[in-house]
Amino acid sequence: MPLPERKLIAGINRIVGGVRNKSVLLGIGDDCARLQVPSGHEMLVTTDFSLENVHFRRKWHPAESVGHRCLARGLSDIAAMGGTPVAAFLSLALPKDLPQLWVDGFMRGFLKLARRHGVQLAGGDTAQSPNGVLADVSVVGSVPRGTSVMRVGARPGDILYVTGELGASAATLQTLMGNAKKISAQRHKEHFYPEPRVKAGQYLCEKKIARAMIDVSDGLSVDVAHLCEESGVGAMILADRLPMERAMEILPHEKAALQAALHGGEDYELLFTARVNTRVPNRIAGVAITPIGIITKSKKISLTDSMLRTIGPLEARGWEHFKC
Amino acid sequence: MPLPERKLIAGINRIVGGVRNKSVLLGIGDDCARLQVPSGHEMLVTTDFSLENVHFRRKWHPAESVGHRCLARGLSDIAAMGGTPVAAFLSLALPKDLPQLWVDGFMRGFLKLARRHGVQLAGGDTAQSPNGVLADVSVVGSVPRGTSVMRVGARPGDILYVTGELGASAATLQTLMGNAKKISAQRHKEHFYPEPRVKAGQYLCEKKIARAMIDVSDGLSVDVAHLCEESGVGAMILADRLPMERAMEILPHEKAALQAALHGGEDYELLFTARVNTRVPNRIAGVAITPIGIITKSKKISLTDSMLRTIGPLEARGWEHFKC
Repeated sequence: MPLPERKLIAGINRIVGGVRNKSVLLGIGDDCARLQVPSGHEMLVTTDFSLENVHFRRKWHPAESVGHRCLARGLSDIAAMGGTPVAAFLSLALPKDLPQLWVDGFMRGFLKLARRHGVQLAGGDTAQSPNGVLADVSVVGSVPRGTSVMRVGARPGDILYVTGELGASAATLQTLMGNAKKISAQRHKEHFYPEPRVKAGQYLCEKKIARAMIDVSDGLSVDVAHLCEESGVGAMILADRLPMERAMEILPHEKAALQAALHGGEDYELLFTARVNTRVPNRIAGVAITPIGIITKSKKISLTDSMLRTIGPLEARGWEHFKC
Repeated sequence: MPLPERKLIAGINRIVGGVRNKSVLLGIGDDCARLQVPSGHEMLVTTDFSLENVHFRRKWHPAESVGHRCLARGLSDIAAMGGTPVAAFLSLALPKDLPQLWVDGFMRGFLKLARRHGVQLAGGDTAQSPNGVLADVSVVGSVPRGTSVMRVGARPGDILYVTGELGASAATLQTLMGNAKKISAQRHKEHFYPEPRVKAGQYLCEKKIARAMIDVSDGLSVDVAHLCEESGVGAMILADRLPMERAMEILPHEKAALQAALHGGEDYELLFTARVNTRVPNRIAGVAITPIGIITKSKKISLTDSMLRTIGPLEARGWEHFKC
């Protein structure tokens, strides 16, 4: 790491200050970070690359929102395994002419979310970017050995649930793309400051409620397909049970809101299955839990009405359609 | 991760095939990788961002070399703590028009080095890059609890040692920049295929030989300054003891070779200190070990002749001067 970059990292180190996680024995400043894994636990590791004009746009997203979102992606992956996030590693490539104010804002957004989840920024790298802001974030978490919830494990007859609401992030993005009006980041937190469902994921894991779980980062249609593929099952999704009130507030037409809920990405909600006779709370850690479908033996994934009459197949289209 | 990217990762997963590490309970394919930490061990984590035209150039570096070098950086950091690398995570952003052959070559270079060190590619992310190839690599390793060698720990009177040779990588880079002749990657492995000193690092750690250690990635002058700063000491470097035969073969003038050895980066050798009465082997794991200086109480870092007469201060200039 060249000298000026070390200064940047050293600067970050100072900002980090109070944010410590007791599992981090050594943070920024040596060749590696040192992490202590709690006895009887295993480690979880996830990595997400966020690129300007692919995952965010500087003219749409305040710097704080970009920092928040870059970390939220990894925290959501840890949540989807039922784990506890411990440390984050940030690789950041910045264009030469980027104002320091923007960098400060990015770090504020990143570290505020980290602090709320007790996650220590324990390392990373910096470089000069030839084009746009590039951020790669790794998050390390822990979970009691052998208890993590994977994508495999869903069985025919299981009920499919989702936390929170779907489609509001993509609905906001569509509004941004339409450029019809100025968007308040604070009033559209689902998109600008999505909250990874870490506590809900931990609860679903600890109480052995979830048999299979994934986070809805690419869009419901894509992520339900992943879960089903790994589990060797199919699903019927009840179109009118999808929690999408907020998407309907943002988008003018119900049909558009439904498309956002089905295919829009970056919801960072948890999608999980539980046995039909497992008691699943209506709310976990303040977040609504909604049954939205049934796991089937047939490997098809279809959309149905509330009487389980098939409306049509649910194609895995995902958030490519909603990209910045 | 959008669908086409998942296909790329799935493709990588197939390539990876036989490369398994028993500490990786679950690799690519779920929300997180799951790692088992050997009992009584702690984890090491390091991250390095490699950008086209900053860390490599496609016209100079074959794809295999780029893949190799991206991983070598992280393995070298694990080596510098005395650890054993376990798993790697690769975030790769690729320009739209990049030939598949290049990607295959990159992965071959990456995975060949990984295989040699028993490192499993356990996760990552892919994206489309707006400009150039961007690769961020995290490496996770393990080390018996509390035994890792850090930058802090050098004491006045310690002898300063280096593995292998210095300056050959920067010397090759200078030749590439001069564009005088075609360079054979196979005949300039120090630059194109540097070998991280993992076994030497483990030995120095296990045998409790090294008191403080760092890898020479930024250049000797910068890295010795880091080690001294962390340890609160200074150093005298014996200019004519620097192992730089290979740099002298590559560069026409001794002075240029010395500059490369002092300030050129990407040697990926280990720089460590040991007590004066510790027996340090001449070779470890096939690599020469050379004493190159003495740690001093005075915090200055100076260059001396073989009679310890000061030639001048050693300024931390580092490999910024040698950048692609």
